[in-house]
Amino acid sequence: MKTPVDIAVTGAAGQISYSLLFRLAAGDLLGPDQPIVLRLLEITPALEALNGVLMELNDCAFPLLHKIIVTDNPKVAFEHVDYAFLVGAKPRKHGMLRSDLLSQNAEIFLVQGRALNEVASRNVKVLVTGNPANTNAYLAINSAPDLAPECFAAMTMLDHTRAISQLAEKCGVATKDVKNVAVWGNHSCMQYPDLHFARVKGQAALELVERDWFVNEFMPIVQHRGSEVIKARGQSSAASAANAAIMHMHTWIHGTEEGDWVSMAVPSDGSYGIESGLVYSFPVMVRNGQYEIVKGLDINEFGLERLRQNQVELIEERQAVKHLL
Amino acid sequence: MKTPVDIAVTGAAGQISYSLLFRLAAGDLLGPDQPIVLRLLEITPALEALNGVLMELNDCAFPLLHKIIVTDNPKVAFEHVDYAFLVGAKPRKHGMLRSDLLSQNAEIFLVQGRALNEVASRNVKVLVTGNPANTNAYLAINSAPDLAPECFAAMTMLDHTRAISQLAEKCGVATKDVKNVAVWGNHSCMQYPDLHFARVKGQAALELVERDWFVNEFMPIVQHRGSEVIKARGQSSAASAANAAIMHMHTWIHGTEEGDWVSMAVPSDGSYGIESGLVYSFPVMVRNGQYEIVKGLDINEFGLERLRQNQVELIEERQAVKHLL
Repeated sequence: MKTPVDIAVTGAAGQISYSLLFRLAAGDLLGPDQPIVLRLLEITPALEALNGVLMELNDCAFPLLHKIIVTDNPKVAFEHVDYAFLVGAKPRKHGMLRSDLLSQNAEIFLVQGRALNEVASRNVKVLVTGNPANTNAYLAINSAPDLAPECFAAMTMLDHTRAISQLAEKCGVATKDVKNVAVWGNHSCMQYPDLHFARVKGQAALELVERDWFVNEFMPIVQHRGSEVIKARGQSSAASAANAAIMHMHTWIHGTEEGDWVSMAVPSDGSYGIESGLVYSFPVMVRNGQYEIVKGLDINEFGLERLRQNQVELIEERQAVKHLL
Repeated sequence: MKTPVDIAVTGAAGQISYSLLFRLAAGDLLGPDQPIVLRLLEITPALEALNGVLMELNDCAFPLLHKIIVTDNPKVAFEHVDYAFLVGAKPRKHGMLRSDLLSQNAEIFLVQGRALNEVASRNVKVLVTGNPANTNAYLAINSAPDLAPECFAAMTMLDHTRAISQLAEKCGVATKDVKNVAVWGNHSCMQYPDLHFARVKGQAALELVERDWFVNEFMPIVQHRGSEVIKARGQSSAASAANAAIMHMHTWIHGTEEGDWVSMAVPSDGSYGIESGLVYSFPVMVRNGQYEIVKGLDINEFGLERLRQNQVELIEERQAVKHLL
């Protein structure tokens, strides 16, 4: 039998984790012959609810689930982990200022970054899904000086697949017929879901759909999809977020398909004029477990303006938490 | 590409389905190269919430998810389906009589049985998880005269894996080292989780654990596990129930392991003195997509008494709904 692989999940008693953990235990990430250890982190008051999840995980008798560790200590949760899903974050409450949201989350991700720095595998892959995801990832990276920044990413995969789904529906094709959609910038309503490079069965997407649809329907639908799901369900999107987290990590491990890419928010290397080090969503290709920003795409003025707006928003977010670093 | 397979799920906007649907769409039941059509049934007032789930399923851009049909009409939901997960049922509300619970659910399962009878594939596999699951399955079978009773089963897989998990933990072994646990009777607190045939790494379980532990700890823990999860989580076990549903159906399709069995509530053939036709949980072996009750096990007086008690309870349940048939 293979040696078990350690996977950490934070916010483990929350809704996204409830959709995520059972899929990890079933082998949806690492396949049907790779045992895993789940290391579950929660804040102390949520440990009792997490115990209920632990009971359910045990009740499933998953053959691949070698061990479960439940803790409120990040250094225990991240010990030797190869994969970390940073799901837990403080949600924005009614009347809360955005700056308060940013700084309360900053505290969490600074602590977790330091713990990862100290105890995680040197090749750990850390996926931040807790919002504001880009800036939380930025903070984790900057409190983990001994880990390569390329060990971290924030999630825009759900935006990416939402964009694929909308375009596929519009064109009446299967989602697998859509390639090279890109989501740029911040995982916020400012994000730029871009169809300029997208192909539908090999044909340029923008030859198939009206520009008006792209700008005035597609873009706002993808940008505001989260709130629309909340309106319909009465709860935020948990299962689709968990699926995107698995898909992001799966792609990070196994690579992108030939000729296609995915969107990930990763530390900028200065490409497309985006300030180096800022955690920014780009189209990336993945080979041998390493993501690389797709270079040399010809962005038009419409796109460049949106890329700049996203940079401005992310610099503002960084400004609001910089004193905590 | 393979022809898509139709899978129906009822109570599709509920919590168990929320854990189930995304795993079906990810290929957890039928594998990574079998496209599926999801046919989702809900009562009319829940269609809006179901629309939120539909949005999330679409947002995932699952390559295997060929189509999703959302409906409040059982005949649309079950059209040509090969697999049906009957998850939706009326939950017991505070102060509700058990007889009211039984008859309100009876209406649901009679209607669904008739619809399956009319429009489902003649080889459909119908798994009832909605409670009271055994009697609901009994009603569905008896309102579907043109379908073989062997097209139906009620779920005791979660009880089965809970039993495995408890025994594995007690013996300090992995769950895959535990074989031939059996759960007999009704999916209620009356169920008889039986270790008399169970083996732990090949050794008889009852040589490894005290009889007192078996009778006074193991049995009540498995029987009452559902309420314990609710106490800890504040919500009923949804993800573990969904996992058990996938595992039941997966075993029904792919068969049991050599030398092992699983527990399923199936129409009795008179084995062990259980009245023929009653939907009763037995250890079953599955070959070529057909379950068969394991015959000839030597049940001691302790066990026979529990088997009888379960039969009495199930006959009472049947009595309470018989006038509706």
